[in-house]
Amino acid sequence: MIEVVILGTGNVAFHLFKAFSEAENIRVIQVYNHKQESLKYFPNVTATTTNINDLKPAHFYLLALKDDVIPEIAKQLRSYDGIILHTSGAVGLNALEGATNFGVFYPLQTFSKNKAVDFAEIPVCIEANSAENLEKIRSLASGITKDVREIDSEQRKALHVAAVFVNNFSNHLYSIGAEICAENKIDFSILKPLIAETTSKIEILRPQEAQTGPALRNDQKTIETHLAFLSKKHKDIYSLLTQSIQDLHGKKL
Amino acid sequence: MIEVVILGTGNVAFHLFKAFSEAENIRVIQVYNHKQESLKYFPNVTATTTNINDLKPAHFYLLALKDDVIPEIAKQLRSYDGIILHTSGAVGLNALEGATNFGVFYPLQTFSKNKAVDFAEIPVCIEANSAENLEKIRSLASGITKDVREIDSEQRKALHVAAVFVNNFSNHLYSIGAEICAENKIDFSILKPLIAETTSKIEILRPQEAQTGPALRNDQKTIETHLAFLSKKHKDIYSLLTQSIQDLHGKKL
Repeated sequence: MIEVVILGTGNVAFHLFKAFSEAENIRVIQVYNHKQESLKYFPNVTATTTNINDLKPAHFYLLALKDDVIPEIAKQLRSYDGIILHTSGAVGLNALEGATNFGVFYPLQTFSKNKAVDFAEIPVCIEANSAENLEKIRSLASGITKDVREIDSEQRKALHVAAVFVNNFSNHLYSIGAEICAENKIDFSILKPLIAETTSKIEILRPQEAQTGPALRNDQKTIETHLAFLSKKHKDIYSLLTQSIQDLHGKKL
Repeated sequence: MIEVVILGTGNVAFHLFKAFSEAENIRVIQVYNHKQESLKYFPNVTATTTNINDLKPAHFYLLALKDDVIPEIAKQLRSYDGIILHTSGAVGLNALEGATNFGVFYPLQTFSKNKAVDFAEIPVCIEANSAENLEKIRSLASGITKDVREIDSEQRKALHVAAVFVNNFSNHLYSIGAEICAENKIDFSILKPLIAETTSKIEILRPQEAQTGPALRNDQKTIETHLAFLSKKHKDIYSLLTQSIQDLHGKKL
């Protein structure tokens, strides 16, 4: 049985707690947060503590914490034998230096408290300070997902940026779509099949191959009609992304 | 049996031909294109012609053509009794004026030749020059989809713009994600579960509610790290979309 202490109670901590709890060979033996209030979900299901000096002996200490507190909390765990892990896309492995055993456990997914996810499909990016620790971290990750990948800190940083584009920014484009619908008394649900198909297409085509639309066709008449229709704030985004599509694909004149 | 003549052989024509052919009560009796070469897929399955003066009598003449040729072709069909339809998001109903019976049949979806779609889920936006024709067009649309909506020309223009944001521009963000992966020797497939979840989330949350990420959190340290990492062309997009997210949601300071 692999024993894990989770530090943090945010969305990543919450979803990892659930996934570990459902795994046969993993047990979360304790959850830490400095605020009692944040632990209120957990007392019925596992031990909790607000005292960083009161952590139980465990195989893994998983820091699902805000990026800027990771180095400081990690420093306080240096005396532990267990492997210290962080779950951040943006923080290097070296933020944990000084500990004996440490690594990274970065699930590449977007988590919201009120939306369940199937962890088995989520890529977990792992990195460690030794080959032996890497294999131990791989065992932990394999307990909750089919997709474990060794990714170094530099690659993870790139992935984190790429994730902002494909997830945060795409979602914002959906928000803009919803705004335009609302302004024109159209039910946003009408766009959902199109959004679903946009994603579905890249299961079988590379995104570059799946590109369509007036920018790709260099259909100036439609582009101008759209720009005339849009408010200032959306016009700038339209222009820049149209330009970017044309730069990537070359204008089809 | 509803009889349809399709004018055009592009992606929309191709997918509508398939959907009509599979419907029980619809038959495509002829396909027109001015180039013989473009008709080569069709001779085995229906009649074809390159002569606009040689169209068969039909209930509907469906113009799945480039926007700028729609008025000119429509003019040549004025003597027909059948309902003249165009399939464009960007062209007004009035482009068909002069005909006796006319309307719009706009399937809100992205079509590629080498990607099958389930037409039953695709919203078809309809509009007509009379209540009677609207009901006839509704019958045609109902033969291939569960989702028929009455949308006027102004709303359809808004939808067309919104579709560019949620489909063309989102897909371009996937391309940027793929570029960043390639530059860092990461398999793009690692981002696919994240992309799928981004879409899946808005089935149950409004896009504004589903927003996450450094822009929403106003996490300046991460934003600066990302900007320093990016090439010029991607940096501008990152900055503008980050600003746009913060404008929509208000900075969380």
